[in-house]
Amino acid sequence: MLDEFARIRLWTGERQRPALLREQGVVIGIGDDAAVVETPPDAAGGAAQWLLAVDTMVETVHFNDATMGDADVGWKALAANVSDIAAMGGVPRHALISVSVPKTWEPARVGRLYDGLYACADHYGVAIVGGDTTSSPAHMVVAVTVTGTVEAGAAISRAGAAPGDAVFVTGPVGMSGAGLHWLLAAAGRGDGQPVPLAAAEADGTAALVAAHRRPLPSVRAARLLASRGTVTSLNDVSDGLASEAWEIAAASGVTLALRESQLPYSGSMTAYAHRRGVDPLEWMLYGGEDYVLLGTIRPDDAEAARAALAAEGLPMYVIGHAEAGAAGVALIRDRGAGGSASRRDEIAKRGYNHFNG
Amino acid sequence: MLDEFARIRLWTGERQRPALLREQGVVIGIGDDAAVVETPPDAAGGAAQWLLAVDTMVETVHFNDATMGDADVGWKALAANVSDIAAMGGVPRHALISVSVPKTWEPARVGRLYDGLYACADHYGVAIVGGDTTSSPAHMVVAVTVTGTVEAGAAISRAGAAPGDAVFVTGPVGMSGAGLHWLLAAAGRGDGQPVPLAAAEADGTAALVAAHRRPLPSVRAARLLASRGTVTSLNDVSDGLASEAWEIAAASGVTLALRESQLPYSGSMTAYAHRRGVDPLEWMLYGGEDYVLLGTIRPDDAEAARAALAAEGLPMYVIGHAEAGAAGVALIRDRGAGGSASRRDEIAKRGYNHFNG
Repeated sequence: MLDEFARIRLWTGERQRPALLREQGVVIGIGDDAAVVETPPDAAGGAAQWLLAVDTMVETVHFNDATMGDADVGWKALAANVSDIAAMGGVPRHALISVSVPKTWEPARVGRLYDGLYACADHYGVAIVGGDTTSSPAHMVVAVTVTGTVEAGAAISRAGAAPGDAVFVTGPVGMSGAGLHWLLAAAGRGDGQPVPLAAAEADGTAALVAAHRRPLPSVRAARLLASRGTVTSLNDVSDGLASEAWEIAAASGVTLALRESQLPYSGSMTAYAHRRGVDPLEWMLYGGEDYVLLGTIRPDDAEAARAALAAEGLPMYVIGHAEAGAAGVALIRDRGAGGSASRRDEIAKRGYNHFNG
Repeated sequence: MLDEFARIRLWTGERQRPALLREQGVVIGIGDDAAVVETPPDAAGGAAQWLLAVDTMVETVHFNDATMGDADVGWKALAANVSDIAAMGGVPRHALISVSVPKTWEPARVGRLYDGLYACADHYGVAIVGGDTTSSPAHMVVAVTVTGTVEAGAAISRAGAAPGDAVFVTGPVGMSGAGLHWLLAAAGRGDGQPVPLAAAEADGTAALVAAHRRPLPSVRAARLLASRGTVTSLNDVSDGLASEAWEIAAASGVTLALRESQLPYSGSMTAYAHRRGVDPLEWMLYGGEDYVLLGTIRPDDAEAARAALAAEGLPMYVIGHAEAGAAGVALIRDRGAGGSASRRDEIAKRGYNHFNG
């Protein structure tokens, strides 16, 4: 039987290519009191600023055995943080992992958790440089901290949106929420094991389940957008479009007016919503965990930015504009096909709230 | 009733002096997707390297309601990380906090946890720049990540000890373990609330309880030692002297021979051990959570280093030396007062092990 230290070495030792670690400036990696890293070369050749973010996933709060496999949990725990770095316009660099594992978990489950963490790390070129594995009396908790870098002065906060700016997202929203809905329904018929992806494939919902289990943060889009110098605010959609739009609106002191007809409806999400009699807007506005970017950009650069992202195969949708006025979010809906008058609804801030949820 | 976001703002908003945040290069602090920090000016005027560490404390595994008050937990969670930065010879700079809070906790308890975190942060000049507060189905988990900086190439790993080096510690060991022993005994007679410090004062064990609840990592000693360029390995005593000595021995490929007569016995620890019929060596070697530094230094600089620390009011004790040979730790005990032959015991690696403990 391996002891704790041997297991942790097995999970974390020499898991990443030396070239990746070198590229991220890792001098001393996982295994000493602290990792030692150098500031990696910066795209602009200047002195980079550092970005620091932390996110936590708690068993039974953020996932359960049916909705997520152990490797999915690892992937998503890191992806949520990579997305935070993208939402500042930066490049993710390093990660530190804190895992509290119930004594009832087989060591193989922790191994799979680390498999997912390393798969996501390799996908985004992130060096895992630190970790702390402790036991837990009950449920599993994984907290991930990431570093990133951004050219000095180029980080994009939430606070810069100005009246007239175009509002955009870098991908469809609501797919993760729809995937969770499908998973919870399927779990009710299941055996407590993770619902197999094959079941989703057979039901035409595999893209929704993948969006929920293996989100792909918009790092490349973030870097392309940040390089333009015209993006005035940026958030990632972790808590739902409504909540993130509210955060930008509140931090910037503007109203964000979104146009329903311009929202990027995913076909599989919409089809599944209609099958279940759900308004797809519910998942799009309040579902959360989409990890696309929501931001504002100077209106005269919106189309050029969209074209630049499209040239790289990356989507960008202009979905509204910022207005002067009290902080708030509005949704403009067209009344009908005849071009008749539109309706404007105030959108509540309601989002994913752990204390009330 | 405040919602989650309002509470978190209350716990974390504008808690630190602008001068501290400025000194640590904080451009954007807590509250956006990620913090933005600049590399702070370095003591040597060169390009600093970054240090990154994470540590986790889990309710019922690392503490319980009787042994630690909520503010103590916050203090110690950050202090354990500050100690990791010290153990590399660096300056602690920034912290990110992940807290998972049971729904049964009153919000005031989280407030006290943050009070302890900020008290420790202010004591060490650490800027808290990020946080994630989630709910937990049962026990509380706090994971803290810290950054630090160190002059390029000056970080002190575990791997550099050479035969002939002197082994030193920067303070007494075993006090925290003795304090925990006293607290667990007192808790058995108590009401489930944190055992009051006044009870320890009345019993002459207040220093032991303080060592357990409010450890004071050796940051100043670490910086003075690192500046000499003669320290060949460094660890902080988080898992007990035996375990930390083993880590240095294994990483460096040497035997560390410790001399019992040179170990720094704390008077209050020794007195309490004798009262309880415990061998003080048990706590000194295996107690853990002392957060002093254990290291090796070139023998010709050991006395000068000790004098330099003493001039700053900081203790340093030479407790043995490194020998060529298989990785291992030995304890040399004098047989008696007559200067007769000494005994040499091999010391097992046994330390704090969450999976078996």
